[in-house]
Amino acid sequence: MATQPAQAAESPNAAAIEELRTLLGDRLSTSAAVREQHGKDESFHEAVPPDAVAFAESTEEVSEIVKICARHKTPIIPYGTGTSLEGHVAALRGGVSIDVTGMDQVLKVSIEDMDCTVQPGVTRKQLNEYLRDTGLFFPIDPGADASLGGMTATRASGTNAVRYGTMRENVLALTVVLPDGRIIKTSKRARKSSAGYDLTRLFVGSEGTLGVICDITLRLYGIPEAISSAVCSFPDLESAVNAVILTIQSGIPIARIELADDVQMDAINKYSGLDFPVTSTLFLEFHGSEQGVQEQVESVGTIVEGFGGSDFQWATRTEDRNKLWQARHDAAYACKALRPGAEIWATDVCVPISRLAECITETKRDIEESGLIAPIVGHVGDGNFHLVFLTDPNDPDENARAQALNERMVMRALAMDGTCTGEHGIGYGKMDFLISELGEAVSVMRTIKKAIDPDNIMNPGKIVRV
Amino acid sequence: MATQPAQAAESPNAAAIEELRTLLGDRLSTSAAVREQHGKDESFHEAVPPDAVAFAESTEEVSEIVKICARHKTPIIPYGTGTSLEGHVAALRGGVSIDVTGMDQVLKVSIEDMDCTVQPGVTRKQLNEYLRDTGLFFPIDPGADASLGGMTATRASGTNAVRYGTMRENVLALTVVLPDGRIIKTSKRARKSSAGYDLTRLFVGSEGTLGVICDITLRLYGIPEAISSAVCSFPDLESAVNAVILTIQSGIPIARIELADDVQMDAINKYSGLDFPVTSTLFLEFHGSEQGVQEQVESVGTIVEGFGGSDFQWATRTEDRNKLWQARHDAAYACKALRPGAEIWATDVCVPISRLAECITETKRDIEESGLIAPIVGHVGDGNFHLVFLTDPNDPDENARAQALNERMVMRALAMDGTCTGEHGIGYGKMDFLISELGEAVSVMRTIKKAIDPDNIMNPGKIVRV
Repeated sequence: MATQPAQAAESPNAAAIEELRTLLGDRLSTSAAVREQHGKDESFHEAVPPDAVAFAESTEEVSEIVKICARHKTPIIPYGTGTSLEGHVAALRGGVSIDVTGMDQVLKVSIEDMDCTVQPGVTRKQLNEYLRDTGLFFPIDPGADASLGGMTATRASGTNAVRYGTMRENVLALTVVLPDGRIIKTSKRARKSSAGYDLTRLFVGSEGTLGVICDITLRLYGIPEAISSAVCSFPDLESAVNAVILTIQSGIPIARIELADDVQMDAINKYSGLDFPVTSTLFLEFHGSEQGVQEQVESVGTIVEGFGGSDFQWATRTEDRNKLWQARHDAAYACKALRPGAEIWATDVCVPISRLAECITETKRDIEESGLIAPIVGHVGDGNFHLVFLTDPNDPDENARAQALNERMVMRALAMDGTCTGEHGIGYGKMDFLISELGEAVSVMRTIKKAIDPDNIMNPGKIVRV
Repeated sequence: MATQPAQAAESPNAAAIEELRTLLGDRLSTSAAVREQHGKDESFHEAVPPDAVAFAESTEEVSEIVKICARHKTPIIPYGTGTSLEGHVAALRGGVSIDVTGMDQVLKVSIEDMDCTVQPGVTRKQLNEYLRDTGLFFPIDPGADASLGGMTATRASGTNAVRYGTMRENVLALTVVLPDGRIIKTSKRARKSSAGYDLTRLFVGSEGTLGVICDITLRLYGIPEAISSAVCSFPDLESAVNAVILTIQSGIPIARIELADDVQMDAINKYSGLDFPVTSTLFLEFHGSEQGVQEQVESVGTIVEGFGGSDFQWATRTEDRNKLWQARHDAAYACKALRPGAEIWATDVCVPISRLAECITETKRDIEESGLIAPIVGHVGDGNFHLVFLTDPNDPDENARAQALNERMVMRALAMDGTCTGEHGIGYGKMDFLISELGEAVSVMRTIKKAIDPDNIMNPGKIVRV
């Protein structure tokens, strides 16, 4: 440090960075390109690069990094695949991004207990690839091939949540490095426990603001004996949504029931080279025994027919199913291709299912009146849907209209006893909406944040203002 | 107060009690019998009566009561049906028990959304009675007809948890009065959300140490088209447990799979006037469509046969099923009748299912060697089982042996990556075991407790020492 006094004076975080360089050598980067990449997620939110990026390789190393940062009160931003959608990784107050993609080992699989323990850099697809020969799978699937650490931190879900739950239901235990560097295990591996406060669920969805998630024990499921996927078109949005609502209310254990509107279907066709009818469409999947799947198909078929839906277009072979669901998962990228040069801005809300048709159709009307391009796509079995705005980054008026529409949609969802985000999280994009949603409860979140992270070094400026 | 200076000087809580009397009139009791009843749960833990009992009738009133107590730093112990098992309601530092049994209204049922909102004094049976004509039911069923507030506070589960989850998975939102009297709502009614810290899950299982639960929004389920219950006997404990393990590992969506050992079956026969074989026994229940139940029955039948189990003894009519499950739910009371005058002392652990057979058989061996009477009964589909010690309260040696056996069982479960309690909670009976289980994580619980309840007035002396 004596050789670089000028640099040390430049940033309040320079001293921490010097110590980290000693610890990590080449695995500490301050290059502009690396910092830029780590300050930006897949949202429209402005990139705010960290001062440095630390590439960690073990829990103990994360603990050492955090201890150094804590000593200098240097902010820390955990980083996985950078696929979040509300600016979660932006280094709003500078500091050090801890990149955990090098922590990519599946540590343990227990076939008997149907669970596994992974490092946070393992992605959902990597895990399922690893599990291929076990007869087990991990169902949670946000659009991106996100890291399981990031999925835990944002309480992610995806297309299977209607049957298998979200990260909330599927994380059994976590190893977490606290803001002072201590390492804790939040729970044992038992399926249920009433031993004290539910720290596991507290860290699931904490978006890096309470600690760094360093390993994750996850529930796994047996691959069903029979799986069938189908696509089916509807005359209008309301009919499609009403078919979903009746399916859920009938208690049919459907594994996936996904909506795409006409604009989204057009985007999917163009992006994935498909030729689905350009109208409101449901993507469905049935899991069970051969007989059970047959029963579900018959029940849902009757419901779909009642709402004027088309016959099911089936995908039964594994490769056809994969193609179908990849097209669904690529919805956001398909949107991007619909208007080259546009910024994509994905937002989501979730409402009680009884209000879903009303919420979506009113939102669709808003979009049509706004003149904006904003496909609708949704995990509608949960009452959750997304808008993907495609806006011209150089047109402030268009951006203002998108902001206004987003706000109207969120306020509509809250008025229906829904939430401002079903699965994207708060980041720094939805902090005001969180207050609108939960009011005084947010001050309890602040109390917890201040107690666990008194110096506000863990991903500051996200979820709650301190 | 001027008229009772002597009394005001007697207890540090006297001033608070006087103010509460002004607020509540007759609904504030200081009678010895009422206080005694409110200081004792169904465990062997010593009764510690509060200084007074406040019978609350609304959330706003609970808030007023808490504000008065907070001003005087008077401890508060929320009280439902008093059926907890680790001394949860004991007023270890005196103070005021808030009895919420008068808050017994079902506030709202949404059939479309399959949820309901209830006051904390509603019991599980009252709720299901209320739902009778809706086609919906609430599955969580601890042995006692507990209040839903208490079930939330202890993260209860029961016989259906293997299929439907515990209170952790089935509480959607809570209204809570904080230790300073503020009223918060932890969540909206949407099925999923990634909006901020999971306060709902933090209060589920907090055992009254963070606030008073004043209403609860719960998931409901459609009553299955077909339900069949059966009982089946095994040559020994290990065979019964291995049949359970294989059933779970096969992914069969069984609704209930409950174990009772020979001693427990003897108790059940005597208490409920039944004549089951006195040997290790499984109680099973299948939910689904007619066809689905048939499939499950065949699959489990094959497994049971493979482990030497008897033919199923069926209960298909509703009244027969109710009789069967009432006998199972009365297991603890049956134990009590097995040795009149004995203290019953129920304890539970939960382990990953791969270790369940080993954990139960080693525990059974311990019991046999100890000379104690301690039936085993368990929600074995979750890896959870109970011992019910029947000890002579006047025999210190017997109690010491029970303590030692309990400690051995807990330590065995922890060594198997299990938990010191699957569903009873920590109370003041398992605080040291919690530390053995989670170590440094308990200090995070303490940090949260101190931040939310800085004066330590909410059920002090439970879960964590402050």
